[in-house]
Amino acid sequence: MDKEAITKIRNDFPILKQKINGNRLAYLDNAATMQMPVPILHKINSFYQTSYANVHRSVDTLGFNATKQYEEARGKVASFINAADTNEIIFTSGCTDSLNLVAATYGEQNIHEQDEIVLTIMEHHSNLLPWQQLAKRKGAILKYIDLTESQTLDLDDVKKKITAKTKIVAIAHASNILGMMNPIEEVIKIAHQVGAVVVVDGAQAVSHFPVDVQKMDADFYAFSGHKMLAPTGIGVLYGKKQLLDQMTPYRFGGEMIGNVTKYNATWADLPQKFEAGTPNIVGAIGLGYAIDYLHEIGMNRIQTYENELSKYLMQKIEKLDFVAIYGPKENHTGVFSFNLKNIHPHDVVTALDMQGIEVKAGHHCAQPLMHRLGVESTVRASLSFYNNKEDIDQLIAGISETEEFFNGTK
Amino acid sequence: MDKEAITKIRNDFPILKQKINGNRLAYLDNAATMQMPVPILHKINSFYQTSYANVHRSVDTLGFNATKQYEEARGKVASFINAADTNEIIFTSGCTDSLNLVAATYGEQNIHEQDEIVLTIMEHHSNLLPWQQLAKRKGAILKYIDLTESQTLDLDDVKKKITAKTKIVAIAHASNILGMMNPIEEVIKIAHQVGAVVVVDGAQAVSHFPVDVQKMDADFYAFSGHKMLAPTGIGVLYGKKQLLDQMTPYRFGGEMIGNVTKYNATWADLPQKFEAGTPNIVGAIGLGYAIDYLHEIGMNRIQTYENELSKYLMQKIEKLDFVAIYGPKENHTGVFSFNLKNIHPHDVVTALDMQGIEVKAGHHCAQPLMHRLGVESTVRASLSFYNNKEDIDQLIAGISETEEFFNGTK
Repeated sequence: MDKEAITKIRNDFPILKQKINGNRLAYLDNAATMQMPVPILHKINSFYQTSYANVHRSVDTLGFNATKQYEEARGKVASFINAADTNEIIFTSGCTDSLNLVAATYGEQNIHEQDEIVLTIMEHHSNLLPWQQLAKRKGAILKYIDLTESQTLDLDDVKKKITAKTKIVAIAHASNILGMMNPIEEVIKIAHQVGAVVVVDGAQAVSHFPVDVQKMDADFYAFSGHKMLAPTGIGVLYGKKQLLDQMTPYRFGGEMIGNVTKYNATWADLPQKFEAGTPNIVGAIGLGYAIDYLHEIGMNRIQTYENELSKYLMQKIEKLDFVAIYGPKENHTGVFSFNLKNIHPHDVVTALDMQGIEVKAGHHCAQPLMHRLGVESTVRASLSFYNNKEDIDQLIAGISETEEFFNGTK
Repeated sequence: MDKEAITKIRNDFPILKQKINGNRLAYLDNAATMQMPVPILHKINSFYQTSYANVHRSVDTLGFNATKQYEEARGKVASFINAADTNEIIFTSGCTDSLNLVAATYGEQNIHEQDEIVLTIMEHHSNLLPWQQLAKRKGAILKYIDLTESQTLDLDDVKKKITAKTKIVAIAHASNILGMMNPIEEVIKIAHQVGAVVVVDGAQAVSHFPVDVQKMDADFYAFSGHKMLAPTGIGVLYGKKQLLDQMTPYRFGGEMIGNVTKYNATWADLPQKFEAGTPNIVGAIGLGYAIDYLHEIGMNRIQTYENELSKYLMQKIEKLDFVAIYGPKENHTGVFSFNLKNIHPHDVVTALDMQGIEVKAGHHCAQPLMHRLGVESTVRASLSFYNNKEDIDQLIAGISETEEFFNGTK
């Protein structure tokens, strides 16, 4: 995308014109949440002001039309990730909810003592703790796939850790810290050879490159709306129909039932079985609008542009010899984790914030990875398609400024 | 409130000016969801356009301010229901999620074989199924409190059903079908005498009259945002601190941890322990705006006005001898369930919809109550403070029209 295209896109995000501490805002915290474009807000407002009602409840005009839009949003999600069947799309309250759903239903039903669950050491707590706690409850064995020396996923270790005893493999599609995509198709192939089911955390993937759940052959694929321009509080669980069909409900309440008597109940078909109670109607419809917005730009164009930005950032940051960068140097995604020698990450964030640069410091919900990297925390700057080279120049200048302020060197 | 005040309020809800099938809209489906006022939409838009960021994650300006607003919303909720401590407010994805949380944690930990769980026969599936399924898993005994002849809660039966074996009592504060408030303080007192814990479903209460969890001495109190002017996808669980403190987490993921290693984890303090992952940030902040809006009108004024409307509706509908009304005739809330003789509820809704009147037909997620009432389904019209006598006149005329159309009588 050229400068003009980006300027046009940036105009949809008025927050990017905010001043932070008197400085131009460089919003580089997209791995935490993306911002919300005005055209989507307008559509949401228009929905609330003309068409809002509860869904799946009756035959009145407002309710019927709201239900239609809610189900159309499900169709948009299905086509966005190329699911074979719209009923394979479950709306949840977020990626964390989606992953917990799988552990609490599929995991609870299928994991037994001595079964093995294989994770990668880079998993976010949301794709680690549900499995760790399930393993504890069941007496199952937890195994972690390690990193190579260049801090990418170790494919040899994948082949070692996945064995005939492996029942579930949980893996991030793209790391929220190490700035890379995992070789998801290869891992899934290896897992399927031993009959294991693969649960993919797509939180850091869906807004950055095209995702095709059929092509990768994922059994479950989870992501959040707020990391792809949708409102907060909406997420998606994709699951293969034959797996979802076997699973018991996660939550109980309205709309997920077949028939309820005082002492017994039967359940609705997919996808309602997993959507108890009034869903996040506007969240789901807003996610549909977000997909429209992303399609209008084009996921391939987004990927190409973000790769370009990412290379530009890597070239600049690599030259700063006081910066330790985590993850691979090649084929980097838009997520950059780093530390400045002898400066606490929180101090770095505070110093950058003074210069209008919004990044995050912390363990980024991946303490086992931090331990593996030998650090307590890192600074993380993360890109999206509305960022530009100016943001990156500002970040690089800010890092140098910070180094000079704390250590008196550049 | 006088006509002028109501007109002013109605101007905040542009959807009320929609035409439905060419007719004036009488939106009488508030028990399913309330509509969203424009001032709240404006505040939400402004938040997205100036202050949006993820929460609890770092020290940058945007993140810090978003966290501040998110936590202020929690404070507003606490004061709205008069919780003793802000940490007793857990944000969930809705009332159903809140009730499932209690069953899956407190229930799972404390219910054992032969323990008794007491429900009322009027419970919504969301406060019935989590307990029914828990009882099945645990070999516990489920008991239902019945109705009196005038279809209110039978207090004598409360005293019979709650015994020394009762561990949990689950009860709606206000029925979503029978149009009445339950004598919640008396039930809680009886339950506490035997040491039982009381879980109150407040979904149909919070936007209609002042709620005071300390005065009623509820152990848990659950409700949804979308039934009180907040966005969809946000709910609240109030719990007494000493109970919440003992409970295990419900979902696992970011923000709810103390320390995570490969094979072990500790949990955060309240309220984060129960808020895994990125919460519905804008939903929670929007719920705070909704509380501001309700406070501006005044919950006592809302209650008085809705009572007035409800009496007016009852006077009119009672006179229609072809209408069977469920629930008590006195002290009626704004929820009216009824049937027209020999006309299927869905046909009634369709006929009313043709006249611009939006009501619901069905079992309203309370099949055991339907069975108790000896019907498959009912029509339900439900009021809120933005309704007026014109809406009621339109409903009454619509019902008469429907009767004439199907049965040729009035």
